[in-house]
Parts: sequence; structure tokens; C-alpha cells
Amino acid sequence: MSFVTYTNKVNIGVLGTGDVGKQLSKAFLTEGNPTMIGTRDVNKAEVVAFKTANPAISIGTFEETVKFADIVVLAVGGAIAQELVKSLASVLSGKVVIDAVNPITPGVPPKKFALQYFTEKNSSLMELLIEAAPEAHFVKAFNSVGNGLMYKPQLSERASMIVCGDSDEAKKSVQPLIEAFGWDFFDVGASTLAGPVEALCPLWCAIAFKTGKFNDFAFKIVTK
Amino acid sequence: MSFVTYTNKVNIGVLGTGDVGKQLSKAFLTEGNPTMIGTRDVNKAEVVAFKTANPAISIGTFEETVKFADIVVLAVGGAIAQELVKSLASVLSGKVVIDAVNPITPGVPPKKFALQYFTEKNSSLMELLIEAAPEAHFVKAFNSVGNGLMYKPQLSERASMIVCGDSDEAKKSVQPLIEAFGWDFFDVGASTLAGPVEALCPLWCAIAFKTGKFNDFAFKIVTK
Repeated sequence: MSFVTYTNKVNIGVLGTGDVGKQLSKAFLTEGNPTMIGTRDVNKAEVVAFKTANPAISIGTFEETVKFADIVVLAVGGAIAQELVKSLASVLSGKVVIDAVNPITPGVPPKKFALQYFTEKNSSLMELLIEAAPEAHFVKAFNSVGNGLMYKPQLSERASMIVCGDSDEAKKSVQPLIEAFGWDFFDVGASTLAGPVEALCPLWCAIAFKTGKFNDFAFKIVTK
Repeated sequence: MSFVTYTNKVNIGVLGTGDVGKQLSKAFLTEGNPTMIGTRDVNKAEVVAFKTANPAISIGTFEETVKFADIVVLAVGGAIAQELVKSLASVLSGKVVIDAVNPITPGVPPKKFALQYFTEKNSSLMELLIEAAPEAHFVKAFNSVGNGLMYKPQLSERASMIVCGDSDEAKKSVQPLIEAFGWDFFDVGASTLAGPVEALCPLWCAIAFKTGKFNDFAFKIVTK
């Protein structure tokens, strides 16, 4: 396979039409990338409304969207991510996948503002996704802040997008894209770090739930 | 009980004579607080050497140290913390305890730089400690950076000490102390957030292990 080098804009395929999928697909389009958003049902009223409001974004099935994409963005619910990725494993083979998903247990409310996860100790959703599609190149990113902050966050200073993944080339291929979105790119290492990276989401959400402010906080790695 | 209000310097009792215990006890003494460090064996060569090098720091048993302290600092190994706290539950009753400990599984090496934890999903060592001494007031702090950064870290900007705990008064009582150590105090909420706060340690350690730099990184919450 060849990794994206950004001599040209790349095709982005966003899987999932929730708030994160909508926000990221609009952002990628704004940055000049041909963008397709993938959904289980292209005729769903919500999807049709989104297409009407954003005519330059293509709509496709999940499989069409993966095939279209140079870089796939996974933005479905955590609970269905593993099964979906498994079903798409053959088309995902060799693709770079930005994994923006967190393992939030459906139907279980936060416990004093703490989101409850379904992942076991020393594991992560990202590692389950790698098992489900071992030939895709996952990069965990955009999982640690709310969707309102993902693109050009308006904060007092530049924050860090904390990423991890097993392919250095895949991480390199998404770095310029994350930087273009207004973030410092901070690679903490392999997919074994995905558990701690996914734990940033409940931390961020606790702050947002507690303060009622969903666009006001992000993490930064301060350096020497 | 009455919480500390900092009209006067308070007695600090540090449990544990490892790197974190030594570092924090010296820092509290530097800040003008009468400080005792607690150990299982006051005659251990390493403890005697520390006492010789730091004559102004008192040495005591764990129990003596808790009794001496207005604020207790727990800095023992994660694997023994629960049992120790349980054995001290009666003397810890009503005390504010800064919990600087992480649930690192002894004897299990990091997995591609990722520390392995013994805590179950949606749980934390802090919550186990609360079960072990339900009448103590735990505040999670100092667990997310290496000991070389805990006191007046030399970084490009002020970083955030991310804390949590169930007693707002206990958190308030340690806030000035953490601020005096050179940190922004950032309270994320209840002890249900301790798992995500404890996950900051493997994240920090992965950066330190990967770069070989143990005094160069800390977390900050960037705001609007």
C-alpha cells in the first residue's frame, strides 16, 4: 500500500452520521478534501436532510464510503464499532482509519458525571477494532474532545490532539490534517496506549457535564 | 472534623519512602510544613540514610505518621496501598488523604510502553482505598506526573494538577498546597473519575519512556 503524502487533497470517508460524523465531514470539506459520509441507510430522513444542507458532501453506504476514501474516519457509536469494522475488514485492508470512537456502554448513565465503559482493564476499543480488521491502519484521534472543538477550536491557546496507533506511517499521514484542524499533533505511541487515550473522553466529558460548557476545554501536553 | 484552612502551616504525614515519598516530604518541608515520613521499618538502611540527609524531616511508623498529620500523603506502591489503608482505617478516619498512588501491577512489564493496571473497568485504586477507609477524605493528586515534576516543575508554562475526590472541603484544603507547589489546581469531580485520572499516569509514563525525558512533560487543561 502507499500512504497519503498530501501533495494533493485526499478523499475522506466518514463512517457515521451522528454529531461527530457530521462535524468532521463538514470540516474535511471546508479544508478542500472531497468528502463522503457513510451510513447504514442512505434514505434515513436525517441523512437526507444533512445531504440537502451540505450538497457538496457525498452520501454512501459504509462500504461505498470506505472504497471512496484515502483516509477513513470512524465516527459511529462505540457499541457498534467492532461489528461494523469486522464486516468491512476486507475493504478496510490497507486503509488509514482515524478512530474517533470511545467505548461508552449504551444505556448506562454516567456515574456522578463519569461515563461508563465496556472495555476490560488494560484493553481498549481501538485494540478490539484492530482485532476486527487487522490489515487496516488505525490512528486514535478526535476521541478526547467534544465535536464542537474538533475543527479549529476557539481556545486561549493551541491544544494537543493526543493520538496513538501502531503504524508510524499512518500517523504521519494524518498529522498534517490534524494540524490543519488547529491542533498540535502529539503521538503517545502504540495501540497499547489506546486505553489511557480513550480515558481522556470521560475526563473531558466530566468537565463539560460539570460546567455545562461543551466548547471551552481541551487537553494540552505542556513541554519544557 | 475540621478541615485545614491554612491560617498556619499544617503537619504533613507522608506514607512511603520511595522516590515519590522522599520528593514530596522534602517539598512540604521546603514549604515550611512540619513533615513526618512514615515507613514499615524505621531502621531500614535507606530510611536511616534519608533521615541523616534530611534531619528536619521526622521519621515514624505509618500509624505515628498518620496521627501526626493534618494532611496525609499516600505514596506507597499501588499493590500494597489497599491493605495498608485498611489497616490504618481507624486512625485515618476524618483525615484528608492526598492519594498519589497508581494501580500498577507489580512484576508485569509495560506493554510497548503502556503500564499495566490491576484495576477493573470503570473502577480505580482510589475507589478501593475509599472502601478500605470510608471515613477518610481522599483527594487524588500527584499521580499523573513523575516525581521530578511534582514540586515547582520547570516547564514552559504552568501545568494543571488534575484532581478528584468526593469531599469538596478536602479538595479545598489541599488546593493552596498544590498551588504553592507551582500547579494550577483543576478539580474534575468525584471519585468516580479516579479511573480516568489514574489513566493519566500510563499516558505520562509512555511519553517519558518513549522520549527518555522524565522532567519535560505535564498535562494542562486549556480553557477558553
